[in-house]
Amino acid sequence: MKAISVLGSTGSIGTQTLEIAEEFPSQFRVVALSAGRNLSLLVKQIQKHSPEAVALADESLLPELKERLENLSIQEKPKNMPRLLGGQDGLNVIASWEHADLVVTGIVGCAGLLPTLSAIRAGKDLALANKETLIAAGPVVLPELKRSGSRLLPADSEHSAIFQCLQGTPWADNARLSTGEPTPGLRGIHLTASGGAFRDWSIDELKKATVDDATSHPNWSMGRKITVDSATLMNKGLEVIEAHYLFGLDYKHIEILIHPQSIIHSMVELTDSSVLAQLGWPDMKLPILYCMSWPSRLETPWRRLKLTEVGQLNFLEPNTKKYPCMELAYAAGKAGGTMPAALNAANEEAVAQFLDEKIHFLDIPKLIEKACEKHKQDYQEIPSLEDILSVDNWAREIVRESTKEL
Amino acid sequence: MKAISVLGSTGSIGTQTLEIAEEFPSQFRVVALSAGRNLSLLVKQIQKHSPEAVALADESLLPELKERLENLSIQEKPKNMPRLLGGQDGLNVIASWEHADLVVTGIVGCAGLLPTLSAIRAGKDLALANKETLIAAGPVVLPELKRSGSRLLPADSEHSAIFQCLQGTPWADNARLSTGEPTPGLRGIHLTASGGAFRDWSIDELKKATVDDATSHPNWSMGRKITVDSATLMNKGLEVIEAHYLFGLDYKHIEILIHPQSIIHSMVELTDSSVLAQLGWPDMKLPILYCMSWPSRLETPWRRLKLTEVGQLNFLEPNTKKYPCMELAYAAGKAGGTMPAALNAANEEAVAQFLDEKIHFLDIPKLIEKACEKHKQDYQEIPSLEDILSVDNWAREIVRESTKEL
Repeated sequence: MKAISVLGSTGSIGTQTLEIAEEFPSQFRVVALSAGRNLSLLVKQIQKHSPEAVALADESLLPELKERLENLSIQEKPKNMPRLLGGQDGLNVIASWEHADLVVTGIVGCAGLLPTLSAIRAGKDLALANKETLIAAGPVVLPELKRSGSRLLPADSEHSAIFQCLQGTPWADNARLSTGEPTPGLRGIHLTASGGAFRDWSIDELKKATVDDATSHPNWSMGRKITVDSATLMNKGLEVIEAHYLFGLDYKHIEILIHPQSIIHSMVELTDSSVLAQLGWPDMKLPILYCMSWPSRLETPWRRLKLTEVGQLNFLEPNTKKYPCMELAYAAGKAGGTMPAALNAANEEAVAQFLDEKIHFLDIPKLIEKACEKHKQDYQEIPSLEDILSVDNWAREIVRESTKEL
Repeated sequence: MKAISVLGSTGSIGTQTLEIAEEFPSQFRVVALSAGRNLSLLVKQIQKHSPEAVALADESLLPELKERLENLSIQEKPKNMPRLLGGQDGLNVIASWEHADLVVTGIVGCAGLLPTLSAIRAGKDLALANKETLIAAGPVVLPELKRSGSRLLPADSEHSAIFQCLQGTPWADNARLSTGEPTPGLRGIHLTASGGAFRDWSIDELKKATVDDATSHPNWSMGRKITVDSATLMNKGLEVIEAHYLFGLDYKHIEILIHPQSIIHSMVELTDSSVLAQLGWPDMKLPILYCMSWPSRLETPWRRLKLTEVGQLNFLEPNTKKYPCMELAYAAGKAGGTMPAALNAANEEAVAQFLDEKIHFLDIPKLIEKACEKHKQDYQEIPSLEDILSVDNWAREIVRESTKEL
């Protein structure tokens, strides 16, 4: 039985992880949880999974959590009362919880960085859903991984697809997958993108794109921010950077392919010209499960993929004019160092401004480009974690300022 | 450097194997060859590869081969004169040639059975292109494989695709792939079929199908016999039986899917619902190379797969009314024992009759069904090699007789 610690248990990745743990009670045991502010859901999760420890990022909510747990009737109480922790230190304890075999990092944003590093330093295997870990902090995280031997198992569907296909190589030394070193026999990878909400829109039409338009995704049901990233193709640009660090590939060997049906989740191209692909319905549960069961495959009753039901799969080159964010991401990735951190933070802030209806859809890439351009002056090639966190703050501020100047 | 012995060096698989050996001179060394009657080509192959030994199936041609080699000018002569062998014993020596690391079995039909068994008994790894080895002789070959530890690497594109995807499992114990035992985590496989020359024909139109119609394949350039098998879908039926023995899967877990573009060469479905696929242009060279380079991947300059060039991939359920051979194959496979040998031989003879314009296209399944039906009387569950060879002869004879009665 595998013991799981879940960082961000009330978020999208966290709740799906716990659903899986519940579906396979003989395989997984939830030993530690951390959450943000959703105490009602957290209490239910504690009742169901009876973890050994629970942390709240916001320490001030601890007394309320304690009270809620104490007020439960005897029948409702969890089997064991968890140890309660709070603040950054509390998160770090959950991330490096002694009895945990796998830490699922579902915390969004730079807040996930420190606990993720704690897990790595404790040598834990990680189901990685926090994208800042590699995109912003790759230069800090990779050496730590090498030192501790902890392994990154990608929890998002594209990198999981690559990871699953790379298990497809007898030379797949698992450590290699998380240290950013090139994999022998691997020529490159093809990340598939649905093309997002505006796949069939012209550039002219994009000028009039509203928030509602941008937040309707054709295939995946996700948060608003990520759905906008999918419409700008920045999500794919960020995945390119993540893939660079995960699989040790040069940027010229990471390609993006528009595939409207989102059935092929990504592909690897081998040096002999053979291509391996992973397919499935668009559902995050499968990649999360694979992180949890790896290296085994569990038996699920989940809906089987029927390609005859899908009928056809299409493939198109992405239009770089229509999706400038894609090129911005490649450029930031190639620059390396702190530049991807600036890109990621600028994008988050620009998308927030768009969702607040303060800027137009086509302003998003402009604001990001401006931030990255400005960052060239303070760019650091080999940054510390503090440098990365400060660039993250700086880029958000720059975007807010630039928004006013628009 | 890997030393290769090639059985059937002047055939389609053999010549492609030698082309690959020539393309990668630092990887492969050809140490032994066997051929049928094409002495001119064989002499050229000997000049180019300078094997240690050469055998001719037809012993009576040995003096001529010897003379041709002796008559070569000094500049044309191979580096070393090969040892020359003939007949069944000669083939067996080539198949178990001491210095060979891998034996490529490109001999067509039951003639390939004995040398293939010699290779297995000598513990050689095999690049398997001779389909009788498993389809007809599976019950004899599997225990021999277990005994000797020799490994079957499938050289045809569909089984190679499955094999490549199954490397995609950390639990892929290679021995398991050749002993017919179930693979943990594997739910089933999906063999893709182009649908052949008559994919878009109605059953009524099939009544008027000519030899020319049946021998024009949309994607693969192959021999006439195999192209007809592709039009009846018997090729896929036979592959189902081969997959059963290769991957230890129950017939209910082997499915056929019509995929007109022949880009996805086959797929594996894992127990957690994930699907892995292998893709490439329709070209036999890749699966042959993979047998030769396995478990490594070589670097080739071959044309890269561009899915945007293909544009779309389609998938259809096969129509069992239109392709009765498919069901005949499943039935023979499930019966096991000598039944697949009867099916395979009856099919070969029926297709030969069709190519001779002695029967109609739609008579092919009728003749096969009749032979299999008759064979129920003499069916053997655990046959010897002699039993299999005698069933092979018997089924051909039955089809010839039944042809007269049509």
